[in-house]
Amino acid sequence: MNSSDITNQDALKLVIIGGVAGGASAAARARRCNAAAHITILEKGPHISFANCGLPYHLGGEIQQRSKLLVATSELFWNRFRIDVRTGTEAIRIDRQKKVVQVRSATGEPLPSIPYDRLVLATGAQPRRPAFWRDAPNLFHLWTLEDLDRILAWIHAHQVQRVAVVGAGFVGLEVVEQLSGLGIQVDLIETTSQVLAPIDPCFARSIESHLVDHQVRLHLGSAVQSLTPASGPIERVVLQDGQEIEADLVLVGAGVQPRIELAVQAGLTLGPSGGVAVNRFGQTSDPQIYAVGDMAESRHAVTGRPVRAGLAGPANRAGRIAGQHAATDAATQQGEVLGTAIVRVFDLTVGCTGFNQRQLKAEGIPFRSVLIQAAHHASYYPGAKPLEVELLYAPESGKLLGAQALGEQGVDKRIDIAATTLHFGGTVYDLAQLDLAYAPPFGSAKDPIHMAAFAACNDLAGAPHLVQADVDLSGDLQVVDVRTDKEREAMPLEGAIGIPIDSLHDRWKELDPQRPTIVVCHSGKRAHVGACLLQGVGFSDVRNLNGGMSLRTRLAPKAPPSLS
Amino acid sequence: MNSSDITNQDALKLVIIGGVAGGASAAARARRCNAAAHITILEKGPHISFANCGLPYHLGGEIQQRSKLLVATSELFWNRFRIDVRTGTEAIRIDRQKKVVQVRSATGEPLPSIPYDRLVLATGAQPRRPAFWRDAPNLFHLWTLEDLDRILAWIHAHQVQRVAVVGAGFVGLEVVEQLSGLGIQVDLIETTSQVLAPIDPCFARSIESHLVDHQVRLHLGSAVQSLTPASGPIERVVLQDGQEIEADLVLVGAGVQPRIELAVQAGLTLGPSGGVAVNRFGQTSDPQIYAVGDMAESRHAVTGRPVRAGLAGPANRAGRIAGQHAATDAATQQGEVLGTAIVRVFDLTVGCTGFNQRQLKAEGIPFRSVLIQAAHHASYYPGAKPLEVELLYAPESGKLLGAQALGEQGVDKRIDIAATTLHFGGTVYDLAQLDLAYAPPFGSAKDPIHMAAFAACNDLAGAPHLVQADVDLSGDLQVVDVRTDKEREAMPLEGAIGIPIDSLHDRWKELDPQRPTIVVCHSGKRAHVGACLLQGVGFSDVRNLNGGMSLRTRLAPKAPPSLS
Repeated sequence: MNSSDITNQDALKLVIIGGVAGGASAAARARRCNAAAHITILEKGPHISFANCGLPYHLGGEIQQRSKLLVATSELFWNRFRIDVRTGTEAIRIDRQKKVVQVRSATGEPLPSIPYDRLVLATGAQPRRPAFWRDAPNLFHLWTLEDLDRILAWIHAHQVQRVAVVGAGFVGLEVVEQLSGLGIQVDLIETTSQVLAPIDPCFARSIESHLVDHQVRLHLGSAVQSLTPASGPIERVVLQDGQEIEADLVLVGAGVQPRIELAVQAGLTLGPSGGVAVNRFGQTSDPQIYAVGDMAESRHAVTGRPVRAGLAGPANRAGRIAGQHAATDAATQQGEVLGTAIVRVFDLTVGCTGFNQRQLKAEGIPFRSVLIQAAHHASYYPGAKPLEVELLYAPESGKLLGAQALGEQGVDKRIDIAATTLHFGGTVYDLAQLDLAYAPPFGSAKDPIHMAAFAACNDLAGAPHLVQADVDLSGDLQVVDVRTDKEREAMPLEGAIGIPIDSLHDRWKELDPQRPTIVVCHSGKRAHVGACLLQGVGFSDVRNLNGGMSLRTRLAPKAPPSLS
Repeated sequence: MNSSDITNQDALKLVIIGGVAGGASAAARARRCNAAAHITILEKGPHISFANCGLPYHLGGEIQQRSKLLVATSELFWNRFRIDVRTGTEAIRIDRQKKVVQVRSATGEPLPSIPYDRLVLATGAQPRRPAFWRDAPNLFHLWTLEDLDRILAWIHAHQVQRVAVVGAGFVGLEVVEQLSGLGIQVDLIETTSQVLAPIDPCFARSIESHLVDHQVRLHLGSAVQSLTPASGPIERVVLQDGQEIEADLVLVGAGVQPRIELAVQAGLTLGPSGGVAVNRFGQTSDPQIYAVGDMAESRHAVTGRPVRAGLAGPANRAGRIAGQHAATDAATQQGEVLGTAIVRVFDLTVGCTGFNQRQLKAEGIPFRSVLIQAAHHASYYPGAKPLEVELLYAPESGKLLGAQALGEQGVDKRIDIAATTLHFGGTVYDLAQLDLAYAPPFGSAKDPIHMAAFAACNDLAGAPHLVQADVDLSGDLQVVDVRTDKEREAMPLEGAIGIPIDSLHDRWKELDPQRPTIVVCHSGKRAHVGACLLQGVGFSDVRNLNGGMSLRTRLAPKAPPSLS
């Protein structure tokens, strides 16, 4: 241990502001590394370390006991760790000169200042309040256990039958699923044109259809104008297009903003993302002060640039490292973040890691993409469910840039394999070679991850190249549809020449080898076989429609599945 | 394409011997890369590309339709790929001089020789016949669809009530599970002292207990002496210790041996593992001849040395690469193998990747190990199941050498994360940083993989070191048991000083800081907290019992859970 700036280790006073996720992790880790330190957690709210990711599931009754959400108590922290937890204690100012934190009680009364040698800020984030927000007894965020208690109280007291959820992010969709499970009619209102901003449209469209199938009334591209009446309980949400939505309760999940007031007041440097700038140990511009979690920046693995992760996993891991470093002056560096996220929406799960198409375009990073469909385990073993995997990768090196997956089962596993590959800067060639666990109940000898990687490797080798599913198929293109007659009837592709794949060897001479040719099937797999054949017999320009008709239909620029 | 040694690409004659797994993959891939080649598959059996991994599940009726196991047909191969599949055609000799394969029919009649430019050998392996084998109508392997048909026919015709399974490998345990599911009493006989040789004893012991819980009669360390009577249907299996086991049917899964007769006859070089030596494209010592799958070698990622993988995943991927290279003279290199494997045994699943403890010892590779217990997803979300993860890693660098996992749910995901990390030569520090997908139904903010990696990182930092669960706790050791009084009563540890973890801050002065000290709890987690405390207050030599009492009890050198 380098004790240069802690003259008496036994006396190290470590103060942690914020006791949820990153703060609790930092405190427990600091104690394990430094038995003598005085460790204090200041928490504004009544609980430390509650399970905020579990809130939607208690709302819907899946997690029945509220007590399950209280994952650790102040008593446990004292008995086991000798950590002094002060709930209901708000830090209001940091005096870096005197090295004290000024605090007040929940009722606003000033309390004695708390001296520190090292400080860890873990004040998190708070929900954004959009312009239409007003005081109303049935208007809520779902951010704290107290929010949850108030929502449940209103639901039970007022026999709520209709809820409007504003914001279709990850938590928004968890809430929609859970409320629907209670038999409540849900209207989901989202200003952008899709649910789940981090998810590419290919999968967002599927989630949207699935929501509609579950009687959720979906309002995409719809901003809230106002809540009526103008005072008292809300009865209707008025959209900017004039539509009025009846609601007994309105839940707003319109994103969060970092709680950085204390840091700003203390003069700590902010980063380009709006969070507190930190090094890889979590140290801010004042090396005696650390910041972790939603309020602080992390480094993104794809760009190496700072971002705000805003997720529980990175917050916990960053807390652990900051706690160790604050307690000992040494720690391994924080890992980079990938924005890895996952959500279950009724029977479907969708997940993502790394950059999505929109982010790659915004960063000006060239990329190619492939989307495949496969069974989540051996197709001959009972219970196989369709799984879709999208890979985004660099055109030259094949370096993986991002991955997404959608299905009923096995999404988390494929996302984690891709996240691990991204951590190591691996390529689609790496993915194609992974020696994954296979037995019929768990996967396939060629896992969906392998199938996606094979398709990407083929694409990079020009054997043949993929063309994106929403490409314009008009003009002088020869479009060859290798689906069966029955499939083509069910989902026609106008202007295409139909030759079922198993007849193509006999019939390819009916086609013009000089014309640019695109081969199409349902998912892209048979089209790959057909395109290889045509390329092999001398067609000059052959491409394969990525994701096939299944994806093309989904991405068609028609009206979303339902605007209620 | 480098066509130096194919004078006329259009005329390339590619012959593939063996049409299951690697052979079928090679053929289909070759066609996609070379539209003009003449591609022929010679298959001794009646089917190509049947689902051999699915056989146990049709035996038990989980896969109800036999037709589901026939994943591709000769017709499909012809219509879609113009691949000429000749089933019932046995290759009996390769004439490398004339470049022809001599063949005969299923009934042994000679057929016209088949000329080749390139040859892919995919003849697989065959079950080993132990010394006690004799001709008997109720003695079987389960290796082919025909084996399965014969077994099912005997079961149905003879109202089989007792089956003896000889060999407790992966397929052996799948068979045991499936037969038990049919209400059949199963005796499982294994010569070594544990089930599942690739699995470390920590998890093998759990699988053994689980088998006994499911009324499987387990005979470990038991070799078969003979089958009685000496002719006709077997009625009893006689073990070397004299025990006799009644059986209406005997199934032997005593490992496999590569089918290399053709390769040996052709003078191809064998490797140190006994398989055919190949380069990373699958080329044998004759570069016009490739070998893939169970008969060929692969390179192991941990040692870089050749091994026989003997698994479906590597076979399929090797076939794909050999097929492409044979058809075009170019391909990416085969990946290295890790021996990744997984099996479900009733309610438990166990998986492994990389080296196990026995292999590491045999190779003289220094390693350390950690075993942790955690919930497979957020513990507060309904349905959380206990999951155990073992990591094996290098003492200096922390480089991951192997990983195993055991539990009801989520084993495959953690094994695949570890396998991906092994592919990249990653460390336990990498594992600790992975940005994995988290939502309560899928994992935890600190995933079991993270928890295992944290424990390994702590061990490497000496904070404090782990001591293995089966360590001798007698002598001048101070053993501190930090479990609750209730836990200690239920599973006592003789000679230990009991101080519950939440009293240790008050009571550690009762202990002698100069004596070598080992801290013990149920799983190792609280012991880590306790050991950190004692180390921190100045105890000179503190260690934490890896895996806690849970693992120690399991590894105790008493009799296995039941010898029937």
